[in-house]
Amino acid sequence: MKAEIISIGTELLLGDTVDTNSAYLAGQLPLLGLDLNFISMVGDNQGRLIETLKQAWQRSDIIITTGGLGPTQDDITREAIAEFLGEKLTIDHALVQQFEELFRYFKREMPPTNIKQASKIPSAEIVPNPRGTAPGWWVENDNRIIVTMPGPPREMELMWTKEIVPRLQKRLSGAVIVSKTLKTFGLTEAEVDERASPFLPFTNPTVGTYAKIDGIYLRITAKAQTEDNAKKLIIQRENEIRGILNDYIWGTDSDTLESIVGNLLSSKKLTLATMESYTGGYLANIITNVPSSSKYFVGGLVAYSESSRAAFGLDSQYIAKYGTVSLEICETMATVAREKLGTSVGVGLTGVLGPDEIEGQSIGTIFVSIDDGQRKHSFARNYPGSRLQIKQRAVTAALFELRRILL
Amino acid sequence: MKAEIISIGTELLLGDTVDTNSAYLAGQLPLLGLDLNFISMVGDNQGRLIETLKQAWQRSDIIITTGGLGPTQDDITREAIAEFLGEKLTIDHALVQQFEELFRYFKREMPPTNIKQASKIPSAEIVPNPRGTAPGWWVENDNRIIVTMPGPPREMELMWTKEIVPRLQKRLSGAVIVSKTLKTFGLTEAEVDERASPFLPFTNPTVGTYAKIDGIYLRITAKAQTEDNAKKLIIQRENEIRGILNDYIWGTDSDTLESIVGNLLSSKKLTLATMESYTGGYLANIITNVPSSSKYFVGGLVAYSESSRAAFGLDSQYIAKYGTVSLEICETMATVAREKLGTSVGVGLTGVLGPDEIEGQSIGTIFVSIDDGQRKHSFARNYPGSRLQIKQRAVTAALFELRRILL
Repeated sequence: MKAEIISIGTELLLGDTVDTNSAYLAGQLPLLGLDLNFISMVGDNQGRLIETLKQAWQRSDIIITTGGLGPTQDDITREAIAEFLGEKLTIDHALVQQFEELFRYFKREMPPTNIKQASKIPSAEIVPNPRGTAPGWWVENDNRIIVTMPGPPREMELMWTKEIVPRLQKRLSGAVIVSKTLKTFGLTEAEVDERASPFLPFTNPTVGTYAKIDGIYLRITAKAQTEDNAKKLIIQRENEIRGILNDYIWGTDSDTLESIVGNLLSSKKLTLATMESYTGGYLANIITNVPSSSKYFVGGLVAYSESSRAAFGLDSQYIAKYGTVSLEICETMATVAREKLGTSVGVGLTGVLGPDEIEGQSIGTIFVSIDDGQRKHSFARNYPGSRLQIKQRAVTAALFELRRILL
Repeated sequence: MKAEIISIGTELLLGDTVDTNSAYLAGQLPLLGLDLNFISMVGDNQGRLIETLKQAWQRSDIIITTGGLGPTQDDITREAIAEFLGEKLTIDHALVQQFEELFRYFKREMPPTNIKQASKIPSAEIVPNPRGTAPGWWVENDNRIIVTMPGPPREMELMWTKEIVPRLQKRLSGAVIVSKTLKTFGLTEAEVDERASPFLPFTNPTVGTYAKIDGIYLRITAKAQTEDNAKKLIIQRENEIRGILNDYIWGTDSDTLESIVGNLLSSKKLTLATMESYTGGYLANIITNVPSSSKYFVGGLVAYSESSRAAFGLDSQYIAKYGTVSLEICETMATVAREKLGTSVGVGLTGVLGPDEIEGQSIGTIFVSIDDGQRKHSFARNYPGSRLQIKQRAVTAALFELRRILL
């Protein structure tokens, strides 16, 4: 079955609000076996919303709208659906009573405009909203379904999971779509695409690649009569892809490199310290985004100037010889972090973020060194991009290497 | 003139990626006096993209597309536009040469698939992409304009401001819409709204409030025949708002707290060091996101465990007495950072991010202390939100206080 999303609200067309509802729903629909082909955004304009509904009606079986259910005059979703279907809006008096009780409970007077939210058309069923005064609609007409939900994400998401998903599941039988994402690092998107090219032409499962800040992701999507069968198709394709790309795959789905590294350190009862220069604490920050990271992360040093390098115990003669942005100093940083904070592993990270070159090293040059107490694993890279992107890539490269060593 | 946005990419319809490009462009179009009536999202499907283009062609003067310009097989924007307009795609050999040079510079081999990005149709003009290998297109045909830009936001945004806006400005005349954003910290959205309420009913300039992670923003938007006249309307309203909210306003438009603090430190020739515990280096990281921050930022310490606190010279008896999450220890952290790294100012930052309470302090409790060498400025707060949100709010509170002291 084909689904389509319409997000309604002038604020979306002014750029003040990013439409996160569509992304949320887009992630939900495949789990129900629904194909999402289009998302549209329309302002609070009845004529344009009707135009959009008309077009969705021609090409989709299920139309999901969010927004435009508030009590004010510019909330026109109900009016537009009524006009589009040629049905008459009437007030549901039981609902008006519910509203009055709700307002009494919060010791507020119900504004007369709120009555508008109690209106419905004959083919609509009222869908309760446990987190607000804007109920949704479930409309069935001419073999099509219109689902109408409020715009605030926390109201919409609860209505979706508690009310709409069970109704849809009852209706739908048939194919289920399941996805799995494999996350790689170390290859460009074109390189991943080229290696995965044998699998790209297939339609079930499909394989798509996309670039994220922590690497290139491959998404395998399978369609089958049951979830189990879809998963079987995915596992088979996953194994084939791993046969080609295994050295570069560091995780799947919701994995993050920092949580994987954290789990490895925890399970091996190892501790970690960092010393960074031009990445300015980004590595320590990312590592400590993981809850309970204090179990393995002992501390970090950010050496951003000559005096801090001296205070942290880096040898100034050695720096004079090799420069602050060099593999030699990066290795010393890893060792100093490890020894100074008494940890099993120390990571040194430095690089040139711009705006200028440093010591003749071009912008985007990064050095990573990991001292595990027995030996040092060190390398240099050069990344394109902005200041922030170089920071992010340097940290990703360090975590990817740390994962490799811990495995 | 009517504009319409089409965002292209299956990842948008899978919910993996939130379409922030449309929100960015939606915020830009009013500045050019363009009316945005529709935003659509389409997957990497040539037939459906052509259908969407056809419909946009009927109702809009300017069609702006983002995404689908990559080197891989599923990037089909160029192919779809060519087919829709009935024009033939050919390779631009000068562009292929440019790509080869770019890849040589980064010491990587150009994958053969990249040649696809050098293709164009007769009615398209190539738009340079200074941040990637996917050039855009500026297409004029039948009194309509199609602007085609790449999907990655930083590539798209630079192409938009440097290349597309000047081309559009040459084309357009008529009313100009200008906006100015005032950024506040320290009040809730409802409080800002209440104080600004005298200005909210007006239509020119309009005043809107919205919540961001670094505070509540007020956006003043004025419409006039010339940019100068619009700016005059804005300045008048801005002065009135400043009369009410001045203590809370820390910047405007593209200002960031870290760049404001950086400028203040630079102009006063002061230096800064930080010591953080549970914020894990986020403050140092944010400070060093500013280019040339090495002029004033000397270094940072991340004390994430008992042993690192000891290594950094915090008195263990004092910690035993007050606890690691306390105003007393936070003040010591500020002083130790300042003294150890020999700076004019030291900042101590600690807080409870969860998953558990620490020493009986609830999740969301944060402490900030700033030692300027003469006295210590310290305070406690409690912020709601996720681990990351508490981190961000703690750092914003610290930078806001640092700005206040430096002023």
